[in-house]
Amino acid sequence: MNVKVHGRACRFRTVTFDVRHNAVRLIEQRLLPHQFRIVSARDFRQTALAIKDMVVRGAGAIGATAAYGLAQGARAFRGRGLAGFRKHVDLVSRTLIDARPTAVDPANAIQLVRQAMRAGRTVEEQQDLALAAAEEFANEDVRHCQAIGRHGAKLIRDGMKVLTHCNAGWLAFVDVGSATAPLYEAQARGRKFHVFCDETRPRSQGATLTAWELAQQGISHQIIADNAAGHLMQRGNIDLVIVGSDRTLGRTGEVANKIGTYTKAVLARQHRIPFYVAIPLSTIDWQLKSGFDIPIEERHESEVLGAWGMAGTPGRRSVLRRVYASVANPTSRALNPGFDVTPAELITGIITPAGIFKPRELWARRRELGWSG
Amino acid sequence: MNVKVHGRACRFRTVTFDVRHNAVRLIEQRLLPHQFRIVSARDFRQTALAIKDMVVRGAGAIGATAAYGLAQGARAFRGRGLAGFRKHVDLVSRTLIDARPTAVDPANAIQLVRQAMRAGRTVEEQQDLALAAAEEFANEDVRHCQAIGRHGAKLIRDGMKVLTHCNAGWLAFVDVGSATAPLYEAQARGRKFHVFCDETRPRSQGATLTAWELAQQGISHQIIADNAAGHLMQRGNIDLVIVGSDRTLGRTGEVANKIGTYTKAVLARQHRIPFYVAIPLSTIDWQLKSGFDIPIEERHESEVLGAWGMAGTPGRRSVLRRVYASVANPTSRALNPGFDVTPAELITGIITPAGIFKPRELWARRRELGWSG
Repeated sequence: MNVKVHGRACRFRTVTFDVRHNAVRLIEQRLLPHQFRIVSARDFRQTALAIKDMVVRGAGAIGATAAYGLAQGARAFRGRGLAGFRKHVDLVSRTLIDARPTAVDPANAIQLVRQAMRAGRTVEEQQDLALAAAEEFANEDVRHCQAIGRHGAKLIRDGMKVLTHCNAGWLAFVDVGSATAPLYEAQARGRKFHVFCDETRPRSQGATLTAWELAQQGISHQIIADNAAGHLMQRGNIDLVIVGSDRTLGRTGEVANKIGTYTKAVLARQHRIPFYVAIPLSTIDWQLKSGFDIPIEERHESEVLGAWGMAGTPGRRSVLRRVYASVANPTSRALNPGFDVTPAELITGIITPAGIFKPRELWARRRELGWSG
Repeated sequence: MNVKVHGRACRFRTVTFDVRHNAVRLIEQRLLPHQFRIVSARDFRQTALAIKDMVVRGAGAIGATAAYGLAQGARAFRGRGLAGFRKHVDLVSRTLIDARPTAVDPANAIQLVRQAMRAGRTVEEQQDLALAAAEEFANEDVRHCQAIGRHGAKLIRDGMKVLTHCNAGWLAFVDVGSATAPLYEAQARGRKFHVFCDETRPRSQGATLTAWELAQQGISHQIIADNAAGHLMQRGNIDLVIVGSDRTLGRTGEVANKIGTYTKAVLARQHRIPFYVAIPLSTIDWQLKSGFDIPIEERHESEVLGAWGMAGTPGRRSVLRRVYASVANPTSRALNPGFDVTPAELITGIITPAGIFKPRELWARRRELGWSG
């Protein structure tokens, strides 16, 4: 999507592959929203480190980064013979998967690329097939997000006010994003609307990443404290809620997403405001039978007890420095659940690349939604 | 209430009067929760400045500070004759009221003290009566909070988990507080319970002031992001909600309080969790006919776009310094409503010094609740 570089809107993807230098090029997301910079991972170990150190984050984005990282590692093979090559590819795969061991997307991406490589009869053929499969993986991620955008854009009418939570934007994918895709497509269709971004404490991805994305794209928006959405709904200032999902239960339609999502769903129901969840197919979990079985990660209390930001004068780049402001009473502790679960009955619809479905329809539609059970 | 000074629990009030030095002694609240310090305002102009500069804040606390400030000013009169004294007292009153012109409590407090002074026939008698009336104003504030505590403590049973929002604690009054009073009284009765403090973005009074109060008092508590309360309720981890009120409509039972209060009320209703509002009588508005008529203050966007805290290493006091961390995307704007309105149907009961009432009972009980219509 767009990034304003010296005032000009330029198009970028979160992750791309530089064939000439055999490098994976990434937006350095840890510097956002205060600085925009592209970094190059020059070998597969650097690519794995970029995943591990959160230079790149978000399900789709780390999947594509791992796919490219595998192609990068395969293409750097300087030995001889398929047996040695296969051992090398094993090492590359393990390194990339171990960079974020609990994430499912890098492992899936690597499995797909390795499957495609099997058709090659020589090292060179397998190297070419790896790169082609990685590109295809990234392009499919983009096509899926674009499809979410086409389906979801129908929900956005002129003059609407849309609430978002956290960041399920293009920075979390290769491009376009999931929850943001309908916004970008509606903008492309010329619709005028306004977005309220929940700041999304404690990590503030709404205030930082989503707001940055919308600003780059020139979409009218304001950041609000997480406490303010209820008031805005009560006063008739929100017409639609669109959020993303970290895990969607295919059997029940329950959605696990960033902490606070459930609260917005309850508020939306109270005010009869449509509440939609935009998801790529890879987040559907066809196994679990209840949202209560989803493990809720307890994150470090320091996220709640303070805030990371920039100290110094915005605009004067040289004096900006990253700082942790310790806000809370220093002798108090915090509890920091990272996610919550929204039940199907609070969800108006789930926007997938294959169309918009009622949450309880997912199971019946499982064949077109990628179920392999 | 208690403050731990070098590890020992000592009792303090938010505001007291030092007769010997004719000084108003205040807890310097702008340093909390990171430092505890008592400051002395040595004349009425310093006392007015302390109100204006938020050394002291909260309805009950600034009311008592203004009452003491008037006594202080009256006692410092060095002229002769009642006419000159009255002119001087007019000046003192105006100075104190102008320190926070939109607040109703200082004006009410000063009216009460001046009324009491009328019984005096000499300057000396009026000076003595001013001080006695100011002490009585402060003591009545404490007695009212204690009464709220006695009524509210019945709601808290052993093992309960209680949610609070913002700070309606003793720091906002002379002592004891409103929403915290039932907690302190339940503790005094030996009940064991746990408190979750909403951090209460954007100004974080829950993470700073309420958490500090509970820590000093030795009450088990944890700070949570405002996004987490819904999840905790869903998992059965909250049994009771108690909040304060900035304005309570006597005719309708609607409650205006810190932004986010309404959201917690909606969540509590969704989970059938009792939702109580603790109020001193001075916050009841007997005039307004609808919560939609309450003006909602739009506060500065910088509160949402970042966070104030301490940079440096906690514990190493010398290197701590106050810092503003700019969190949000620097080219985005924020919307920052300071308060919201909770309708009567979401409120289980209103805890007043005169007992606990259904919100729609207030009007019928208006005579015992201080109505003068």
